[in-house]
Amino acid sequence: MLALEKLNARMTAANSLVCVGLDSEYAKLPERFLQHETPQFAFNQWIIDQTHPFVAAYKPNLAFYEARGTQGLTELALTIRYLRRQHPEIFTIADAKRADIGNTNAGYVKAMFDELDFDAITLHPYLGREALEPFLERADKACIVLCKTSNPGSDEIQNLSVEGGKQVWELVAEKVSREWNQYGNCMLVVGATYPAEIKRVREIVGEMPLLVPGIGAQGGDLEATLQAGLTKEGRGLLINAARSVIFAENPGAEAEKLQLEINSHRNS
Amino acid sequence: MLALEKLNARMTAANSLVCVGLDSEYAKLPERFLQHETPQFAFNQWIIDQTHPFVAAYKPNLAFYEARGTQGLTELALTIRYLRRQHPEIFTIADAKRADIGNTNAGYVKAMFDELDFDAITLHPYLGREALEPFLERADKACIVLCKTSNPGSDEIQNLSVEGGKQVWELVAEKVSREWNQYGNCMLVVGATYPAEIKRVREIVGEMPLLVPGIGAQGGDLEATLQAGLTKEGRGLLINAARSVIFAENPGAEAEKLQLEINSHRNS
Repeated sequence: MLALEKLNARMTAANSLVCVGLDSEYAKLPERFLQHETPQFAFNQWIIDQTHPFVAAYKPNLAFYEARGTQGLTELALTIRYLRRQHPEIFTIADAKRADIGNTNAGYVKAMFDELDFDAITLHPYLGREALEPFLERADKACIVLCKTSNPGSDEIQNLSVEGGKQVWELVAEKVSREWNQYGNCMLVVGATYPAEIKRVREIVGEMPLLVPGIGAQGGDLEATLQAGLTKEGRGLLINAARSVIFAENPGAEAEKLQLEINSHRNS
Repeated sequence: MLALEKLNARMTAANSLVCVGLDSEYAKLPERFLQHETPQFAFNQWIIDQTHPFVAAYKPNLAFYEARGTQGLTELALTIRYLRRQHPEIFTIADAKRADIGNTNAGYVKAMFDELDFDAITLHPYLGREALEPFLERADKACIVLCKTSNPGSDEIQNLSVEGGKQVWELVAEKVSREWNQYGNCMLVVGATYPAEIKRVREIVGEMPLLVPGIGAQGGDLEATLQAGLTKEGRGLLINAARSVIFAENPGAEAEKLQLEINSHRNS
């Protein structure tokens, strides 16, 4: 099954647009996990066991694993293997924000798509489509390109006005949806902290699914995000929550609450 | 010693602007290294032993190590430890092309600057200065921001015309040199395949050192690059060569040849 078909099938089967960010920073793990030989993996297993009925996708950010060197990467690999075995129908995203020149990207493709067997990866657009071909031509996997990121300073480069009165992030949305997406395997990242931009991106890209970080700890507005970004069929968004779910007292309840809150807006 | 002071001291002591790219792709290693328990490290050791008198810096690209999972990262760590022990005066660059939102970058800072102890890292500018603060505020290390990359498709995003008739890469050069560089630890990447852009970047950034990939296999013109980018004192460029040196019959001779060719233009 192609990656985006898998994502859509899972959204339907679980009736969920929730993505849980496995940003399992070692320093923030509850103390009871620290005695494990593989504390990040043990924590992730616990999170997955409680949250899986409510989620469409899991998205570990590589930075929190690389910070622990080869040990962290081993625990990331264990996490993905666990997901593949227990919940092969759930979509997995390597939030790696990679992008190098063409030939070099082959190394990242091998690492993320083949060795770790992620369904998708996040990518920087700055080097252009030609550089990203080794990712884009993997029709079986999904390429999630940064468009308008959730951080407060994202306007500095992304909101520069280019010819025709558009901004850089708009042109990225146009290019990715019209030129980079020849295999139908592209998505875009648009932050929940910028609902007006989500609305405009939705106009540009049609039904293309958007990955939306920034809900929860970063202060993005869920209702505004959904109004701006849902397709007519009430789909097309993957709403990521990380810290607000995984470091909650009861992560399963938090994930379910988010699922229900999102669905109440989809059906209204 | 601060990272850029270290770079300048080494350029002077070795009379060299050469950076050797340790892009030690496993599939391209000479057969005699494949029997080693740590083939990438054994190869890098051999390259370093032959080339070190002629170089100012070494720059491994992370993709070639991540492609081999934790084994590759272990061999990268061994390589950097070997350099630190044998040649602590040589500048080291993690060509990782990272950039995430602020809080998350702390993981990459820990991995690249503290654990692996690189002197510098390459960074994407797309998320803006605010996101990169965890890197930028490390006054002891160097931040090398992608400006105009060497790949043929780099014009797609980087050459968009913005207000005032400038292009995105020009604004990145302006912002990095005037606003992001408060600790004096920034550099820029400008490809040797674009000498006109190197010339313009040099006008914008003053004495700031530029990392210039694209010589050799990618077809960049060395003479044009040096004419465009050297400062009045014949400095300010770190000329990277990877495949053309490390996969040569005699890497030491190739590195020395490049050093001498560069120096003939510096002194003319």
